[in-house]
Amino acid sequence: MARNLSQHLHCCAINTATLGFQTPIDQTVECVASAGFGLIAPWRQEVEGNNVKAIGKHIRDAGLKLSGYCRSTYIPANDTLTFRNNIEANKCALMDAAILGAPCFIMVVGGLFPGSKNMNASRQQVKEACAELADYGDKLGVKIALEPLHPMYAAERSCLTLLSEALDWCDEINSPNIGVAIDCYHIWWDPNLKRDIARAGNRILAFHVCDWLVPTGDVLNDRGMMGDGIIDLPSIRDLVEATGYNEAVEVEIFSKANWWKRDIKETLNVCRDRLFTTV
Amino acid sequence: MARNLSQHLHCCAINTATLGFQTPIDQTVECVASAGFGLIAPWRQEVEGNNVKAIGKHIRDAGLKLSGYCRSTYIPANDTLTFRNNIEANKCALMDAAILGAPCFIMVVGGLFPGSKNMNASRQQVKEACAELADYGDKLGVKIALEPLHPMYAAERSCLTLLSEALDWCDEINSPNIGVAIDCYHIWWDPNLKRDIARAGNRILAFHVCDWLVPTGDVLNDRGMMGDGIIDLPSIRDLVEATGYNEAVEVEIFSKANWWKRDIKETLNVCRDRLFTTV
Repeated sequence: MARNLSQHLHCCAINTATLGFQTPIDQTVECVASAGFGLIAPWRQEVEGNNVKAIGKHIRDAGLKLSGYCRSTYIPANDTLTFRNNIEANKCALMDAAILGAPCFIMVVGGLFPGSKNMNASRQQVKEACAELADYGDKLGVKIALEPLHPMYAAERSCLTLLSEALDWCDEINSPNIGVAIDCYHIWWDPNLKRDIARAGNRILAFHVCDWLVPTGDVLNDRGMMGDGIIDLPSIRDLVEATGYNEAVEVEIFSKANWWKRDIKETLNVCRDRLFTTV
Repeated sequence: MARNLSQHLHCCAINTATLGFQTPIDQTVECVASAGFGLIAPWRQEVEGNNVKAIGKHIRDAGLKLSGYCRSTYIPANDTLTFRNNIEANKCALMDAAILGAPCFIMVVGGLFPGSKNMNASRQQVKEACAELADYGDKLGVKIALEPLHPMYAAERSCLTLLSEALDWCDEINSPNIGVAIDCYHIWWDPNLKRDIARAGNRILAFHVCDWLVPTGDVLNDRGMMGDGIIDLPSIRDLVEATGYNEAVEVEIFSKANWWKRDIKETLNVCRDRLFTTV
């Protein structure tokens, strides 16, 4: 039996990408808190180059926690120096995640490196990097959340596509500090969903919701508000919560033509209502 | 060791969708034969309502064989009558496939039915229908080729996405008259490709090639010519031919903005050359 989210607003999270980065992070924090959410997941573009400690304090002072910190620099590279630089960039981000107080760092791992058609080469690089980042994050108290992306992003964004593969990598890396981020948009279609979510068990570090629109106008930035598409969100949440997961349900909607154009207070209100009624 | 296609032109096939249906089937047949290909895969829209027997004869007289016949009416429906009608439409198409002399009928099975968010309900319907169609095709000498489609088509076109799932369905249906169509565009990203192609073994009924363009402008009709994208086609063909597959390598490119606008003789020449050099 999944939680009644209207009685668990402290578990409802907003990923700031949902609001289209229309306002500076401080203003976004205030709006998210005012709308009653309990958690926020900021992006590096809102944080880096600013006073990270002050942003973390502001989030806490507003009564919010972090559900995660988005997201990794892509790992795969066709030379060692770039590969190392990518890892180091992620270590810097992990430090910021720790300062902010984020429990996990979302890994969108990257696809093929320039000129390559070799997915396995990318996968090997990512696994090597994630093992190192899991150790590094462990010292900082920040977990590594491997996010499998929808296969339509395999070439350019993520050589990691299936939840089962993310769990295989967790097994291989074998660190208590690595787990998975489950985003319904990426995995709703998977015929092995029930099996793989059960297998994920206590390795689920983040749970993201939005909806798949029919038709989808743009593969990157035409995600739907929960309830406006065809994903059976309650069934997926049931599977996730059946593992014992009782952390955040995070709304993450990339919607250039629709939600990003709306007033962020309106978007937040709709997100909250839809979490109660359709997720 | 994969075949040298330049010495196996009789195994090189053109799916007529590659040519954008610019010419009537008779003219298309002549062009495909003149370009040296050994096989052709026509679509129902070119055949139905015409003299099917005469088209079959023309194909044979031109020295061509069929590599397959495209494609099924979607199966899933929200009422029994529509479901039955969908099966019957496919039976009619199977008869045409037999008259044409096609060894297999390509099943693009359909996604969610109207109003549904239940992928498993669609999958159950498709399996039931395919069992019946496999029996029906057996009497006609036409095999049923289940084609897993890329997960970006799951909602609208195919609840069948993974090759492993297609093979599970074959196991379940357990008919000698059902197998799979492997299209590189749909499965290139799958981390279990090596395992699943080996498992497919002699159930591979069709092998389709094209390329995944980076970026992809349109999810439906922006497929690339072999060599213009990021799919490691030779590696996939190696895996397929390692199973003992020695049937057609079929070019199927949906390319509204590029190849469909070109002269079909030019497209055919490029297809042939790329089969020799990049597949």
